[in-house]
Amino acid sequence: MSTVVVLGAGIMATALTFPLRDNGHEVRIVGTHLDRDIVESIQTTGRHPDLDLIVDPEITAYQLEDAEKAFEGADIVMSGVNSFGVEWVGEQLARLLKPGQIVLSVTKGMTADEEGNLEILPHTIQRAVGEELRNSVEWAAIVGPSIAGELAVRHDTAVVFCGEKQEVVDKLADMFRTDYYHIWTTTDFVGAEVGAATKNIYAFAAGFGEGMQLKEGDEANQRYRRLNLTAAVFAQGAVEMNRFYELLGGDPSMVRSLPGVGDMHVTAAGGRNVRAGTHVGSGVPFSEVRDSLMKGVTLEGVNAIVVVGEAIKKQIDRGVLEPHEFPLLRHLHEIVVDDAPINLPWDEFYRGY
Amino acid sequence: MSTVVVLGAGIMATALTFPLRDNGHEVRIVGTHLDRDIVESIQTTGRHPDLDLIVDPEITAYQLEDAEKAFEGADIVMSGVNSFGVEWVGEQLARLLKPGQIVLSVTKGMTADEEGNLEILPHTIQRAVGEELRNSVEWAAIVGPSIAGELAVRHDTAVVFCGEKQEVVDKLADMFRTDYYHIWTTTDFVGAEVGAATKNIYAFAAGFGEGMQLKEGDEANQRYRRLNLTAAVFAQGAVEMNRFYELLGGDPSMVRSLPGVGDMHVTAAGGRNVRAGTHVGSGVPFSEVRDSLMKGVTLEGVNAIVVVGEAIKKQIDRGVLEPHEFPLLRHLHEIVVDDAPINLPWDEFYRGY
Repeated sequence: MSTVVVLGAGIMATALTFPLRDNGHEVRIVGTHLDRDIVESIQTTGRHPDLDLIVDPEITAYQLEDAEKAFEGADIVMSGVNSFGVEWVGEQLARLLKPGQIVLSVTKGMTADEEGNLEILPHTIQRAVGEELRNSVEWAAIVGPSIAGELAVRHDTAVVFCGEKQEVVDKLADMFRTDYYHIWTTTDFVGAEVGAATKNIYAFAAGFGEGMQLKEGDEANQRYRRLNLTAAVFAQGAVEMNRFYELLGGDPSMVRSLPGVGDMHVTAAGGRNVRAGTHVGSGVPFSEVRDSLMKGVTLEGVNAIVVVGEAIKKQIDRGVLEPHEFPLLRHLHEIVVDDAPINLPWDEFYRGY
Repeated sequence: MSTVVVLGAGIMATALTFPLRDNGHEVRIVGTHLDRDIVESIQTTGRHPDLDLIVDPEITAYQLEDAEKAFEGADIVMSGVNSFGVEWVGEQLARLLKPGQIVLSVTKGMTADEEGNLEILPHTIQRAVGEELRNSVEWAAIVGPSIAGELAVRHDTAVVFCGEKQEVVDKLADMFRTDYYHIWTTTDFVGAEVGAATKNIYAFAAGFGEGMQLKEGDEANQRYRRLNLTAAVFAQGAVEMNRFYELLGGDPSMVRSLPGVGDMHVTAAGGRNVRAGTHVGSGVPFSEVRDSLMKGVTLEGVNAIVVVGEAIKKQIDRGVLEPHEFPLLRHLHEIVVDDAPINLPWDEFYRGY
């Protein structure tokens, strides 16, 4: 049996404690500074308020100031903070990690440097902890279609564990695998992460069709959910996701499997990013969605559109990419940054499919 | 302006008359022997009863006995019959086609011979009309995500026109293209058709998750729509679709675009095959769905599972395929042919992704 410390008490990290506890591992949850109420709730009532479930009573929850104690003797360190917290995670791991531990990341996204070069988040975290510590621990991540609440109620969920060494991901997979949590492994770290990082971008566009339907007045039009448009956008998302694989390196066959269209499918089926896209589809400028209708709501997909869209524009300016590439992403960038109305650039879609 | 005769008065064929009429082409609809009421409705009231819309008043509708008159002088012959009517279409075209006409098929599916060799439907129709006539006309088809009703109310729809000659598909695309009907072209006939033919198979499985939810009693479980499972099945569908591309020939990059995951996305979002899968997911044996709950309902996806699943089993028996290939299709075949309960073979999924 291993000891797992979870940094971040969000719903995905907490959901992952269910297979871990089913397999008898020791689990410690450490909340971030934003998770104080969640940790207190688990400590006093056992209930995770956002997941709305009682966590396993054997789990110990720690406030951040007790993190050192929680990390003591842990075999696995799970980073369950969302993409906005990636720098913070790097700082915390730099002070808390101990040589020989395995870092398992569930944070998804990409960062970009000044020139628009993109990087998967595990690599960003690795840089943050410094070379010596980076080389004295192992690195892995979980990707694939997972709604946290479904995993926590033990509904079938199929994912990929990726990492730098096969023996490490095999060990992790053995720890988490149950009859409802189905796990595949790969050492194609970048390939597995690219889909996970870019799917949120296209999930935002998955809301457009429903939004357009909401504003239609005509009765015959109202009958239809604009699924043709949603499917067409999904397909262009897959085309652009494939281009990301080419750009960043990684096995492009992942596009057609769990880490690619699988993860994009579940992400496009609902959630906050899709809801934001629905508002835009119904004719609301994005700034109004951000500042009023969905004020304060974390929108990882929109953030990815800003970060990755900006990087792609820089790469086009530098001549690394052709001006016609990533037409959907570039349009989504206009929508969230410049408040542009939806006007899909159909003529630029599906090149090189 | 061209003259288009449409054989089969179904909803998809009729929906395609909207862009044609918007572009000013002459359109004649010929009903099959099963379409008598539809043709009469169009003739007397202008309304297509299944589409629940008034068709363009310039369209002439013919009963089957007047087909020869309708075919006279037509440039384009659109075959809009569903996959169950493919032999019938072959017979009709054999007597009605005239040299120089272009056949444009919207029928999707595959046929198999005694040994389990698979063939796309346009090739089956071509064989049926005989070699001389086959070589004196042109052949093309439409694939991609299209719900007929959405096209008919002029909602954005993106498709691929495929055929044997680029100049023929270009001509057809120019005839149909409007500001809501977005068309790409390819001469990769098989590649474009394979996705269209196999997506229905996997749409059946897209209903399982919702069905499983329906039978769950526990309140926490009820909150979740089993989207993780649905996405995982979608991903395995994409993996198997890719294998079909390898088997039948055709550009595998189509898997990640409109004719592949795009079409599978819209098909998995709803419709009769998904509904049948939902019943099975809720625990009803398929024979009861077929003979009672959905008696008389046309299920093209289920038919594809029977035909293609049988063919794949024969290819495995002959050693053309490995025993572990197409695990999802083989399980769907057990479900619809042997009344097997759902028991997804997770361990066999995602090989070679």
